[in-house]
Amino acid sequence: MHTKIKGNRKPLSLLWPAALVLAGLGATGALFAADTDPLASWTTGDSKQAIIEFVDKVTTPGSPDFVPPEDRIATFDNDGTLWPSHPIYTQLAFALDRVKALAPQHPEWKTTEPFKSVLANDLAGIAASGEKGILELVMATHAGMSTAEFEQIVTDWFKTAKHPKFDRRYTELAYQPMLELLDYLRDNGFTTYIVSGGGIEFMRPMTMEVYGIPAQQVIGSSIKTEYKVVDGKPELIRKPEVNFIDDKTGKPVGINQFIGKRPIAAFGNSDGDRQMLEWTGAGAGARLMMLVFHDDAKREYAYGPAEGLPDTKFGTFSQDLMDEAKAKGWSVISIKDDWKRIFAPDQ
Amino acid sequence: MHTKIKGNRKPLSLLWPAALVLAGLGATGALFAADTDPLASWTTGDSKQAIIEFVDKVTTPGSPDFVPPEDRIATFDNDGTLWPSHPIYTQLAFALDRVKALAPQHPEWKTTEPFKSVLANDLAGIAASGEKGILELVMATHAGMSTAEFEQIVTDWFKTAKHPKFDRRYTELAYQPMLELLDYLRDNGFTTYIVSGGGIEFMRPMTMEVYGIPAQQVIGSSIKTEYKVVDGKPELIRKPEVNFIDDKTGKPVGINQFIGKRPIAAFGNSDGDRQMLEWTGAGAGARLMMLVFHDDAKREYAYGPAEGLPDTKFGTFSQDLMDEAKAKGWSVISIKDDWKRIFAPDQ
Repeated sequence: MHTKIKGNRKPLSLLWPAALVLAGLGATGALFAADTDPLASWTTGDSKQAIIEFVDKVTTPGSPDFVPPEDRIATFDNDGTLWPSHPIYTQLAFALDRVKALAPQHPEWKTTEPFKSVLANDLAGIAASGEKGILELVMATHAGMSTAEFEQIVTDWFKTAKHPKFDRRYTELAYQPMLELLDYLRDNGFTTYIVSGGGIEFMRPMTMEVYGIPAQQVIGSSIKTEYKVVDGKPELIRKPEVNFIDDKTGKPVGINQFIGKRPIAAFGNSDGDRQMLEWTGAGAGARLMMLVFHDDAKREYAYGPAEGLPDTKFGTFSQDLMDEAKAKGWSVISIKDDWKRIFAPDQ
Repeated sequence: MHTKIKGNRKPLSLLWPAALVLAGLGATGALFAADTDPLASWTTGDSKQAIIEFVDKVTTPGSPDFVPPEDRIATFDNDGTLWPSHPIYTQLAFALDRVKALAPQHPEWKTTEPFKSVLANDLAGIAASGEKGILELVMATHAGMSTAEFEQIVTDWFKTAKHPKFDRRYTELAYQPMLELLDYLRDNGFTTYIVSGGGIEFMRPMTMEVYGIPAQQVIGSSIKTEYKVVDGKPELIRKPEVNFIDDKTGKPVGINQFIGKRPIAAFGNSDGDRQMLEWTGAGAGARLMMLVFHDDAKREYAYGPAEGLPDTKFGTFSQDLMDEAKAKGWSVISIKDDWKRIFAPDQ
């Protein structure tokens, strides 16, 4: 996983100006660019330029915007920003699969909502159970076991579960341009974090493999855990009780709690990321705030604040957010226009 | 700050055997050892040997106990483990100073406990107010401002506040042998974390300077914060409400929440660290668990489970913990016997 187009890992900031010059050479251009352009899957345009200019500014010694490496913190939302959030959040797909796997031990689910709807593959019925129903699904499938057991369940699920539209494993569907961006930032001394409304222990088993982001750089929502010594063996038991919701105003709270530093770059795609971008943008010095706009129905999905695009429950991008982005100079990444490819080639 | 006796930073595991041989050379021995022994402030003995043997095991490629660098997680309690916790916790000293500084704005404190006792320097009176009283002191001095304001208050306090016994700034009182241990572990690819019952935002302003541990590697107790946009400026406001207590069973919970990996080494000094050491020790492979035992009344303090030593409220080391340490093979560090010096020389 964590597929990379480029091969070079080290002095990219040095190679980059040379690559710009050489990319104009024509015949060998395509192949060469794929080898040396750290952002090869991005089309030339405002978004790509905003990234490069920002990174140059904060990494150039002597620049008024120079930021020492230990403060180069970049935070990324996950669902809809690093991989698809449609047709439903990956974690909800996991919960639905788990309900089906656990159903034999719960005969009462056949007649109890929201489980009844899940077993009948009735998405409208699940939606009708509202936030309370979703929370019940999460608790029934995410709590009641040790953290080690849950990690194993998640790991096993990711090995086989596939996305319904793309028919590939979820772990193969990280957005290729965003993988390049993560690498590009890390190659330039950044520490990359995930800051997601998704479950922290649902993400951690796959983030290193998929994004190159280790467990300790993953911030997410959580349920409470309790330390217990069972038969002389210490365990952390997952309890059916919300601990922290890492969404909307929770994102700056989570960032402050886990990192203790303000990011200088933040990437999101929905109203849930708004406060993270506001918080990032309110610091002094050069900042980069970007929103992924899903406007490519053909290659991926299209929804949000553009004429003719439907609204969505799985990553709402409101007109209000678009207005704030414009007013504050946040970059809006058009998947249709800014990304040459969306996923790495099928293996 | 973050004073180092040694000057060499890189291939210590390589230099070490040579240093052992050369240290026997006599005349130049002392000076040379100070230059090259990464644990120069530790006397030769079981504790020092346990550290070196453990690090050798987990860093030697091909060893059955080899651990890749990304999993070399070491967690350290702070009060009583990395710096003194007597005569009172540093953070309590801060709270008492803050009550005095804020008293003019709170005339009612003159007649209300626990503030009345604080203003009268009556430690017994403060103690009599119990846990509820201490919590009131914390909330009155730690909440009601933005995170940025609190950081500034703490930073300013550390610039001048001095320890009553040693008459030096608290930030100069990190234990020299533990600073060497932190460096030694980091030089061997470890990531070092603080996992303290103390306040996370009280520690972060000083941990990099004092211990070389950045904010994102500090785990501690916290109060709730709330995201608010005030006059167009996003702020995190500290609320007088407990969020998380990172002590006892809270330590494994906090470690799992923040790091998402089990440490392979853990260091503490009190009953509050017991579960952290149990959790660390319950993992597979080589492990190092150590407890600092304060048995040096002359150079520092003496308290805990030894004949004639008084008990303490500020870092209880119970006989029960000592028994568990012995039963499980945890190392007990005797300050009196294992440490050649306690602090870096006064500047």
